[in-house]
Amino acid sequence: MSLLIKGGTIVTASDTYVGDLYVDGETIHSIGTSLDVAADRTLDATGKLVIPGGIDVHTHLDMPFGGSSSVDDFQTGTIAAAFGGTTSIVDFAIQEFGNPLQQAYDTWQEKARGKAAIDYGFHMIMREVDDAILKEMGAMVDLGVTSFKLFMAYPGVFFIDDGAIFKAMQRSGEIGATICMHAENGLVIDALVEQALKQGHTEPRYHALTRPPRAEAEATHRAIALAEMANVPVYIVHLSAAEALAELTAARDRGLPAFAETCPQYLFLDYTNYTEPGFEGAKYVMSPPLRDKSGQDELWRGLRGNDLQAISTDHCPFCFNDAGGKLLGRGDFSKIPNGAPGIETRMALVFDGGVATGRISVNRWVELTSASPAKIFGMFPKKGTLAPGSDADIVIFDPNGESVISASSHHMNVDYNPYEGRRVRGISETVISRGEVIIEGGSFLGRPGRGQFMQRDSRFVGEELPWDTTSNT
Amino acid sequence: MSLLIKGGTIVTASDTYVGDLYVDGETIHSIGTSLDVAADRTLDATGKLVIPGGIDVHTHLDMPFGGSSSVDDFQTGTIAAAFGGTTSIVDFAIQEFGNPLQQAYDTWQEKARGKAAIDYGFHMIMREVDDAILKEMGAMVDLGVTSFKLFMAYPGVFFIDDGAIFKAMQRSGEIGATICMHAENGLVIDALVEQALKQGHTEPRYHALTRPPRAEAEATHRAIALAEMANVPVYIVHLSAAEALAELTAARDRGLPAFAETCPQYLFLDYTNYTEPGFEGAKYVMSPPLRDKSGQDELWRGLRGNDLQAISTDHCPFCFNDAGGKLLGRGDFSKIPNGAPGIETRMALVFDGGVATGRISVNRWVELTSASPAKIFGMFPKKGTLAPGSDADIVIFDPNGESVISASSHHMNVDYNPYEGRRVRGISETVISRGEVIIEGGSFLGRPGRGQFMQRDSRFVGEELPWDTTSNT
Amino acid sequence: MSLLIKGGTIVTASDTYVGDLYVDGETIHSIGTSLDVAADRTLDATGKLVIPGGIDVHTHLDMPFGGSSSVDDFQTGTIAAAFGGTTSIVDFAIQEFGNPLQQAYDTWQEKARGKAAIDYGFHMIMREVDDAILKEMGAMVDLGVTSFKLFMAYPGVFFIDDGAIFKAMQRSGEIGATICMHAENGLVIDALVEQALKQGHTEPRYHALTRPPRAEAEATHRAIALAEMANVPVYIVHLSAAEALAELTAARDRGLPAFAETCPQYLFLDYTNYTEPGFEGAKYVMSPPLRDKSGQDELWRGLRGNDLQAISTDHCPFCFNDAGGKLLGRGDFSKIPNGAPGIETRMALVFDGGVATGRISVNRWVELTSASPAKIFGMFPKKGTLAPGSDADIVIFDPNGESVISASSHHMNVDYNPYEGRRVRGISETVISRGEVIIEGGSFLGRPGRGQFMQRDSRFVGEELPWDTTSNT
Amino acid sequence: MSLLIKGGTIVTASDTYVGDLYVDGETIHSIGTSLDVAADRTLDATGKLVIPGGIDVHTHLDMPFGGSSSVDDFQTGTIAAAFGGTTSIVDFAIQEFGNPLQQAYDTWQEKARGKAAIDYGFHMIMREVDDAILKEMGAMVDLGVTSFKLFMAYPGVFFIDDGAIFKAMQRSGEIGATICMHAENGLVIDALVEQALKQGHTEPRYHALTRPPRAEAEATHRAIALAEMANVPVYIVHLSAAEALAELTAARDRGLPAFAETCPQYLFLDYTNYTEPGFEGAKYVMSPPLRDKSGQDELWRGLRGNDLQAISTDHCPFCFNDAGGKLLGRGDFSKIPNGAPGIETRMALVFDGGVATGRISVNRWVELTSASPAKIFGMFPKKGTLAPGSDADIVIFDPNGESVISASSHHMNVDYNPYEGRRVRGISETVISRGEVIIEGGSFLGRPGRGQFMQRDSRFVGEELPWDTTSNT
Repeated sequence: MSLLIKGGTIVTASDTYVGDLYVDGETIHSIGTSLDVAADRTLDATGKLVIPGGIDVHTHLDMPFGGSSSVDDFQTGTIAAAFGGTTSIVDFAIQEFGNPLQQAYDTWQEKARGKAAIDYGFHMIMREVDDAILKEMGAMVDLGVTSFKLFMAYPGVFFIDDGAIFKAMQRSGEIGATICMHAENGLVIDALVEQALKQGHTEPRYHALTRPPRAEAEATHRAIALAEMANVPVYIVHLSAAEALAELTAARDRGLPAFAETCPQYLFLDYTNYTEPGFEGAKYVMSPPLRDKSGQDELWRGLRGNDLQAISTDHCPFCFNDAGGKLLGRGDFSKIPNGAPGIETRMALVFDGGVATGRISVNRWVELTSASPAKIFGMFPKKGTLAPGSDADIVIFDPNGESVISASSHHMNVDYNPYEGRRVRGISETVISRGEVIIEGGSFLGRPGRGQFMQRDSRFVGEELPWDTTSNT
Repeated sequence: MSLLIKGGTIVTASDTYVGDLYVDGETIHSIGTSLDVAADRTLDATGKLVIPGGIDVHTHLDMPFGGSSSVDDFQTGTIAAAFGGTTSIVDFAIQEFGNPLQQAYDTWQEKARGKAAIDYGFHMIMREVDDAILKEMGAMVDLGVTSFKLFMAYPGVFFIDDGAIFKAMQRSGEIGATICMHAENGLVIDALVEQALKQGHTEPRYHALTRPPRAEAEATHRAIALAEMANVPVYIVHLSAAEALAELTAARDRGLPAFAETCPQYLFLDYTNYTEPGFEGAKYVMSPPLRDKSGQDELWRGLRGNDLQAISTDHCPFCFNDAGGKLLGRGDFSKIPNGAPGIETRMALVFDGGVATGRISVNRWVELTSASPAKIFGMFPKKGTLAPGSDADIVIFDPNGESVISASSHHMNVDYNPYEGRRVRGISETVISRGEVIIEGGSFLGRPGRGQFMQRDSRFVGEELPWDTTSNT
Repeated sequence: MSLLIKGGTIVTASDTYVGDLYVDGETIHSIGTSLDVAADRTLDATGKLVIPGGIDVHTHLDMPFGGSSSVDDFQTGTIAAAFGGTTSIVDFAIQEFGNPLQQAYDTWQEKARGKAAIDYGFHMIMREVDDAILKEMGAMVDLGVTSFKLFMAYPGVFFIDDGAIFKAMQRSGEIGATICMHAENGLVIDALVEQALKQGHTEPRYHALTRPPRAEAEATHRAIALAEMANVPVYIVHLSAAEALAELTAARDRGLPAFAETCPQYLFLDYTNYTEPGFEGAKYVMSPPLRDKSGQDELWRGLRGNDLQAISTDHCPFCFNDAGGKLLGRGDFSKIPNGAPGIETRMALVFDGGVATGRISVNRWVELTSASPAKIFGMFPKKGTLAPGSDADIVIFDPNGESVISASSHHMNVDYNPYEGRRVRGISETVISRGEVIIEGGSFLGRPGRGQFMQRDSRFVGEELPWDTTSNT
Repeated sequence: MSLLIKGGTIVTASDTYVGDLYVDGETIHSIGTSLDVAADRTLDATGKLVIPGGIDVHTHLDMPFGGSSSVDDFQTGTIAAAFGGTTSIVDFAIQEFGNPLQQAYDTWQEKARGKAAIDYGFHMIMREVDDAILKEMGAMVDLGVTSFKLFMAYPGVFFIDDGAIFKAMQRSGEIGATICMHAENGLVIDALVEQALKQGHTEPRYHALTRPPRAEAEATHRAIALAEMANVPVYIVHLSAAEALAELTAARDRGLPAFAETCPQYLFLDYTNYTEPGFEGAKYVMSPPLRDKSGQDELWRGLRGNDLQAISTDHCPFCFNDAGGKLLGRGDFSKIPNGAPGIETRMALVFDGGVATGRISVNRWVELTSASPAKIFGMFPKKGTLAPGSDADIVIFDPNGESVISASSHHMNVDYNPYEGRRVRGISETVISRGEVIIEGGSFLGRPGRGQFMQRDSRFVGEELPWDTTSNT
């Protein structure tokens, strides 16, 4: 099967040019100003952008929560992703207390099997760090799970202490893996939550008021300091607060290999959403919480100037009108399931709010949503660019199309959308995964289970690591 | 009993002038250009400095350690202090696991009773934070113990976690107390110590190599962030690393009420001392460790410009040639008792290395060693200045005198001196405590037990606290 | 003549205590808890603060402007100062193009002679820097004029270029003098003014809009950089913008001896005053202009933490309803005489807005308005403190008194007051200059011409200068 | 004429992959994993890097100096550039006092005509800023001269004052041009030079000692502040000092569009070169001067993390043994012609010292030496990448080849090489300019005069500019 995409404006992290792109089988064969080649199918992309498929390195599909799960599984979630122009995800497998990492790996492979419509990989969440687990990290890297997530928040659930973090970081350095960090000081937050509840503050907005920006900034600083002492890079997930970005920026100014993603919700929603009438604020309960709008310019500054390297979604949907969903927290904000949907809306939101407003270039959009996460997490250049030999994960994107985001039309398996009614410029019109057109004409043409597991490489590609910056005296 | 000190150069934190000072009983009655008053005794201070007695707010006398104790008790320690021009100390009472603070208070009062030759107060070390202890903090403040020390280092011994620290800080805000923080990331340090020992690194210098400056800087940043969230001031004890000072400076630039002391050992000794032949390096084993000499200019910068507010000693002596002392750690640096002597040498070392070299003014010397700690810890203006009504704690200091520091001549009960052989300018010639001459002509004229317990006030005097700087969204 | 002030709360930069103060002739003889001495006159200060007289190191009395002068001469200005609790000023003598500094010195001595009611000194404004002038700087220091002011603003009037500034700085280092800098980039400002007028923007607020904060911040940074290369301290006058303070703070964090004053107008007035109806905004036309209110917290942060060292007035009054005054600029903001009155209101405004609100301590108030300027400009300890031997420049200040500021009651020779109608806590009830009560019961009891010229010392007292921080490669 | 480059590792700013590249005429036609196309000529690039031709945006060919000129003209200079893998340069046309920019444009076109072997563009150096010149800037942009260089150094020669700089910046904003700034405080430097000579310091190293890093840092800060007030981007040329980079970094952290290049000499040579015996130090006399080696790590930090965006050469050669060259300054360092050769050695030096040592990635090497300068200066994507439609400016680079730099073998018309004897990895084996092989087998196969003038676009491509960051109050 071959495919010729003609006359589009081809955009990568670095380049923009008009040309033809020829796909042979699952990979890109050639790109030219005008390719004179016979193809099984020809798509006219005139006036459209041709970009590498989006890569979302932070999703929680079918994530266990309180006897139930996040409401998108690998089938509904990856199909929704595809509709939004995303052709690869990296989801989080979760180690269970007392069990080896292998079990979590197996469980998550099972969750994805027969369901994933696009390619997928796993980060491994570690809830415990002991000698056996440290050893097993190497086996995971061999399986292509080259990144490990640790939590400074959620004591009793995910939290591990600084000593454990430090050892896991040292080990990641030995095996070329990357540590992903949830950076919030969970011990302080738990004290604040307890105090708020004791004072009778039960509304959703107290979720935000008990997770101050400084708790994120502090943990961000600490994560980087631990990584500096372990002499390894670190990647901060879902950075939300300008105060945390300031810590990251300062570290990078010192030459440290510290990296972070932010998410669309922190760019386009803010604290005032928690004050929506009734229990509506619960829709936005996620961690870190939405912040004051005044910090968003600073996040864009970081995205533009490379103090932030990626935009992911932290997609983790729970229904609003569902006894097992957000309603669990009626009367006690601390019981609201944390998370919100976003896997489908990322590419368009960032194009609309970033590129169309002139905040970032179209190349930087591709870099933040595809090339850079691919490089950081060992998928590049198979994923993340449009180059001969790369996987034919391609989106034909109409920059002039417009749509209105709504739960009534989205494909995610959740009964609300945090951006309900928002009009956005830019539509992922045709989506191609490894040479196969899976989205076209507003329909999913693929097949659940066609997605493949991505065995990722270790070590960053791209930004090099500095020599040792740690002094011991 | 009355005393007239004539013709000296009177120096306070702010003023320098030649004049007479008249003491009536235990307090200063008047100061004038020339006082025409009859006194029981007249001292000629012509050509000498007349300064408020030194205040050392960080000592560990008779501190339990491994079945034994630090080798200076309240008698030998306070007499040595007096010889060095120090007339007040604040020592650390230590809560025992499972016991109330009151017990520690009682124990330490007992240690001091009949022994202290100068006035003394207590900080309270808290090893546990629960509701009962939090409540008892208020009772301690009523007793004049208005400062509490917490440890981010020494897991299993003193370490308490961030949640406990945060709650204790909140409580300190309610009762006007001050939190003193040992800021080193003990969990990382313990991991490094374990690894070093496993690799066969047992020499004293590994004490320093397993406690990197970044572990101190990280904890300093975290302590300040926790205090910011609790909206209280914080005081960092024994700040040693330029990296930690950078964190403090940045916080103060943001207007936060963060304070710190450093100690003479960090100004005049350095990492190379650990490389002295044989087991000599053990003499300098203290926490934080001695740092690279290159950071000392930065400490002086902080002292000059008020990013550091005090100089104390962390006096905690253990004998070098003693089976229960430093020798405990022969073959395993982690077993060397932490601490070194210094209660006697502080005033002269800082005068010599600070004032005589032009790094700080004579007023700043008085401020750092007496006025500022008195203000921070609720002793001012009873202590810390020379003003009518203040306690007559006075040192007649000969700026031109010289001495050579040596274990053979010092009065501390320890068999070595870290500054052995160092020649310093400036001698505390005559030392007066509440109107009584206790040091004169090289002899101690006082009486063990004459020292009184200082019931300290809560709340800072002097530098005001800013309004609330914490934003919660 | 002798004077006994009984029972007041004596406040200096460092100390606060209740006591008696005895003045013999022109100086302070003694201070005690209770002085049993016969005096020609006894004043009861119970419940009052007894503070060193205020020192205003930035005034422009009888300053030539466009054929006329600022409307307070040395008589009206110093009497108004005395009413406000200020007992010493340092005014600016202005070199004329082509004339030696000596001529300016003589002219200003002539202006003050027979008029000054309080003690006065001079800074010397240099409009030109050549070999002769550089040489003459030494002669000025011998006369007690130990500070020189240079302008980075006002091209064609006061502006001198960076090369000239640098040479004057080097020379100041040789002779122990201090450079005072007006730090605004006048060349940029002139371009903006020209453009604004060309666009028809003639209203007073364009005075502010053509002098952006960045123009001040840039010049502040540059002044400090030039001083760093010349290896001398520098003192920035009338710092107004938070952006400029950030530059100063960063320099001080690097250990550089950079100092600055701000003025009450920048703490209590702001840009919105320019938008008052009609031509009212002209009352506030001064340089630098009033800034956005949002920066004032940062100025207080600087005052509290010692990044700002002094508060002066830049008193330079022009009448509002006067053809030779502010009206000159009707129809062209650039022709409005720059300056506003303030010599009388400083002490009370800062007490009310600083001490009474808890932003700074009462000691810091004394330090900022008296002790610190005295130290920086070579008047200490003759001026700036209450200590035996110091000049008896004393204010008995009622902290509970209140007054309403108004042009109808003030003593300055100007027809408006920028703080009209503002109620302030704190009244300078009794003002004593060199032992003579000159203000009492709301009346001036002194005599024009009684003020003496202060021959100031060179070199700072107090904060020491660091060793050489400049690297040349 | 067509060309097929087979099997090379194609490297752009973002991508690295193995493939074939087909050139049709002057442009790249297509790129593929394996192209089955007939070409006039086929080159085997197996094991080699295929990169976009280098772009050197800072050269001074045939630059008038003291009656003579820099010793490479457009013929020798561009041929040497080609040998080093550079296929485009941007040289500096110099306005003459009192003459229009057009005259300079015409003069430089004349210099290049018939000589340039590769493509070339011009920046315009402006020595004067008046209304006529400001107007003429627009005409220059129409001619494709879209960048203007201003000097803060060299009073009397190139220096223009801040007001003129500011107006030129404002104008550049209107017409979409870019200001290039030589950022050194020339007024301070001239004072230091005068003093050094007066003190008899005539040796070459005084060139460095009279141009301190702070003079560059100050000017860098000022240039950015002026640009901020004018609300335009600014590009600092030949940044050399870590202190200057710190200013740039701080500005970029604030989100300002400030950019800078450094040069190989600042990465690989240092101050100690001035201390070479005899008059040898004169070889390295350039402005800014070589700096202390300790700052080089910081420059690499900036290059890696994008605080520095480009590496150019400032190629401006004068012979060492030539009465009209460096010898002019024997006995007076200030008369040594400023400048050194480098146009030929840039690509290999940065590959060797940057890529081969692991300091930067191979993509970042291409970005810094080609893509990024092309984007900043309006040449992209015609130049600076390997994409269909782009000019076929291509270098086949052997990463394993090695050479020894020497004046005896280089092609520049100068009698010394600052890197004499240095062994470097990486050789520009085959160099193609617009489809024509001009370097192959160590020979120049092109023809003087074949180079074309590049009419450059205005406005940056790539990094977007932020919205207005200037506040006026």
